[in-house]
Amino acid sequence: MKHATCLADLAPDGIEQILARAKEWKTRPNEKHLRDKLLGMVFFNPSLRTRASFEAVMARGGGHALVLEAGAGSWKLEDRLGAIMDGDRPEHVKEAAPVLSRYVDALAVRCFAQGDDDENDLADSVIAAFRKYATVPVVSMESAREHPCQGLADLLTIEENFGLTSGLPVALTWAPHIKALPKAVPNSFLLTAAARGCAVRIAHPPGFELHPQIVREAEQFARSSGGSVSFFSEQESALAGAKVVYAKSWGPATIAGLTSDAVRHHSGWMISSRQMEQAAPDAIFLHCLPVRRNVEVADEVLDGKWSRVVDQAENRFHVQRALLHWLFR
Amino acid sequence: MKHATCLADLAPDGIEQILARAKEWKTRPNEKHLRDKLLGMVFFNPSLRTRASFEAVMARGGGHALVLEAGAGSWKLEDRLGAIMDGDRPEHVKEAAPVLSRYVDALAVRCFAQGDDDENDLADSVIAAFRKYATVPVVSMESAREHPCQGLADLLTIEENFGLTSGLPVALTWAPHIKALPKAVPNSFLLTAAARGCAVRIAHPPGFELHPQIVREAEQFARSSGGSVSFFSEQESALAGAKVVYAKSWGPATIAGLTSDAVRHHSGWMISSRQMEQAAPDAIFLHCLPVRRNVEVADEVLDGKWSRVVDQAENRFHVQRALLHWLFR
Amino acid sequence: MKHATCLADLAPDGIEQILARAKEWKTRPNEKHLRDKLLGMVFFNPSLRTRASFEAVMARGGGHALVLEAGAGSWKLEDRLGAIMDGDRPEHVKEAAPVLSRYVDALAVRCFAQGDDDENDLADSVIAAFRKYATVPVVSMESAREHPCQGLADLLTIEENFGLTSGLPVALTWAPHIKALPKAVPNSFLLTAAARGCAVRIAHPPGFELHPQIVREAEQFARSSGGSVSFFSEQESALAGAKVVYAKSWGPATIAGLTSDAVRHHSGWMISSRQMEQAAPDAIFLHCLPVRRNVEVADEVLDGKWSRVVDQAENRFHVQRALLHWLFR
Repeated sequence: MKHATCLADLAPDGIEQILARAKEWKTRPNEKHLRDKLLGMVFFNPSLRTRASFEAVMARGGGHALVLEAGAGSWKLEDRLGAIMDGDRPEHVKEAAPVLSRYVDALAVRCFAQGDDDENDLADSVIAAFRKYATVPVVSMESAREHPCQGLADLLTIEENFGLTSGLPVALTWAPHIKALPKAVPNSFLLTAAARGCAVRIAHPPGFELHPQIVREAEQFARSSGGSVSFFSEQESALAGAKVVYAKSWGPATIAGLTSDAVRHHSGWMISSRQMEQAAPDAIFLHCLPVRRNVEVADEVLDGKWSRVVDQAENRFHVQRALLHWLFR
Repeated sequence: MKHATCLADLAPDGIEQILARAKEWKTRPNEKHLRDKLLGMVFFNPSLRTRASFEAVMARGGGHALVLEAGAGSWKLEDRLGAIMDGDRPEHVKEAAPVLSRYVDALAVRCFAQGDDDENDLADSVIAAFRKYATVPVVSMESAREHPCQGLADLLTIEENFGLTSGLPVALTWAPHIKALPKAVPNSFLLTAAARGCAVRIAHPPGFELHPQIVREAEQFARSSGGSVSFFSEQESALAGAKVVYAKSWGPATIAGLTSDAVRHHSGWMISSRQMEQAAPDAIFLHCLPVRRNVEVADEVLDGKWSRVVDQAENRFHVQRALLHWLFR
Repeated sequence: MKHATCLADLAPDGIEQILARAKEWKTRPNEKHLRDKLLGMVFFNPSLRTRASFEAVMARGGGHALVLEAGAGSWKLEDRLGAIMDGDRPEHVKEAAPVLSRYVDALAVRCFAQGDDDENDLADSVIAAFRKYATVPVVSMESAREHPCQGLADLLTIEENFGLTSGLPVALTWAPHIKALPKAVPNSFLLTAAARGCAVRIAHPPGFELHPQIVREAEQFARSSGGSVSFFSEQESALAGAKVVYAKSWGPATIAGLTSDAVRHHSGWMISSRQMEQAAPDAIFLHCLPVRRNVEVADEVLDGKWSRVVDQAENRFHVQRALLHWLFR
């Protein structure tokens, strides 16, 4: 049985197959590749694209997605082993995951970093519990560590714009926000772009480093694919000549580094046309959405010639369909 | 591409077609008129009939409806252009509408009047943003200005009871409530009844006038259809001999007119059998529901011979099916 | 028209048919026994198994389930006759039930005991209102009085483990919790096990008696089936040699008996391996879930050889499919 909660689950071969299939099927959204399949979606956090696109994938494919919201309509879930469950979480993943596995053909889980325990977030404890106790494939809809469907959609969008990605200079730049956001999206972009051979440049202010484990894994992917990974503490060098400018906010490297205005400080990092003009003349702009306009990214960029954010979001549908097909095959 | 967020979108010809089709298909609820169609429903406000009836329409028709609740499970949505998005709304309709348009075949939106800005409510800013940025048809499930599916269901119910509606005296009477409600339902009843040739009489206490723009639009519809529109500041004249008594509460004409007990004051306006006996002997009673029993309307009316409120609610299913078919054709 | 909100609705013959069909169809989850059927699910309370299993039943069977949450996304519902509805419940079941009946083929309702009025809870007022005003079959997804689908799943699990249940010693033991829980699950286990001929033993601390009406009904079922019902104020005698140990917490016999730590007092009643070893050597352990680990039941039991709680939860799917088929036939 396969899972798909991190890029390592797919491996370069799986990524290749999923992206190829996503392109091949793109013009035939209603083919019944998922007939009679049931997907159980468990949300610990809000969603617009993920929920709508997975539900559309299942419905158009001839299957069905059912939605449970832990803590709203459904029970809050405990994942700590050995817990004396006398708090606000009346059900354990040890029960929820195997029980739901009896009703559905795969489980999709969204569980953001909880942001109160670096080690727990790094260990991706909720998704790990689902992997351990589910008896059907588990798909990540974004966990503390990764958001693999986003990474796949990002790369599909880049390949549709530039063809081969070997050596393609792509820049991921940190952006300001009103609060500390999880790192799953930057992690997954870094890992997937590295696995597809891009020359990945990452720019962020000091103190916002991605986790060394993720960086090492990306460097390994890059070595296999012929890609590269480099870091910058200012935007200009990272953006110079880049074909892709990917903006995303994330929180400090550790929870200890989180002060009330840590992420508000660097307002100069907001992406405007000034930054886009430093990139290649045919550069495209990406963001995973939702985006806070005029905080993370200026209107002029999102509404301008560079933006591919809607195509990128559409590609969530196409890669997820291909991923579920890969998982069930 | 057609939209259906206000009666003007349908025009008299569309209304005629939709009502005819609704009647024709009424006995065949499971015909697959909507095969492979996906409807994305975005709720800014609660719903029972609207949500259940649209979901039933799609499921019975061979398609599927997916539900997103802005601010509960899904992100709160911003609609102001140029906003610096540093508040509690992390996503803009500028992204949400085109992105969802990539997953579904039509978008249905419920966004009540927000009640903090007369101009904004009059401009129907949320629905206007969806119309502008969606790339698929947009359907209103009630906006600040209108609730066209309700108006269609109202008229279908009247036609089923009285046949031709030309010159039919129908009375819409304001009713008391515990709070100021939006005006979309009275607006839509007025517009649709006027467009279908009814002699529309509207009664409300002073200070609860409907917006002059709506009244002018209704008068234009009435001129074309041979109907009429008249206003009364007490119930008795409006109800005398009316074939239809439609009760509905709504808030003061302007937000400035809203005092804490503005809508509690006029308890004598509650519809009881006394009022129904002033209407025609074969008069029917309508209400869009939900209804606060013994506040807006007495039990004796809702449970009595006059009431058609359940038929009226059922007709939401039939007109919405016909409307979606009209929209996709 | 049949309803299925209490065991008496099914009667021994219905129970027999439903359990037989559940076993027969168990290996064919995707057969289209419910094609074009629409189930409207109305939740007054949270759910994981119930919501997911009913939705799976409908989707796999070729139908569809739509979900409404009273008070979250949908309106709070009033059920008191004659109420002056000026509080926080804007819609009455008198409207909601017949209206929803026009959209769907059956209504499933979850409405836990409200715990503020013994008489009201005993009368099962919400489900009674749905039965009275719906014009389609009403199915309980747990009401104040009973949870018949749980009772059926319990007995299916027992029969799968032990074959014939005539005279089978089964023990239902009260368990500690952090708050007073409703009695629908113990009621339904008692009634269903008695109807299937088990020798039912119930153990609970003094003050936690089940309602005499339920006990009398169970005793009548037992007389017909050849089963028996007995009560114990300590666990040991009830568990001795039992083939089934069913743990479940519930609140005091009356609301007046509810003190802040009424249910915390008896921590010695938590089920651990010590208790399981008092039962028969081949005893199985059941719990309806969700279960608070190490409060109600120790990890060693839930993770040990005795536990059938996941099979038991799976059986919710199978009995509900058979029950809906029985209801629609």
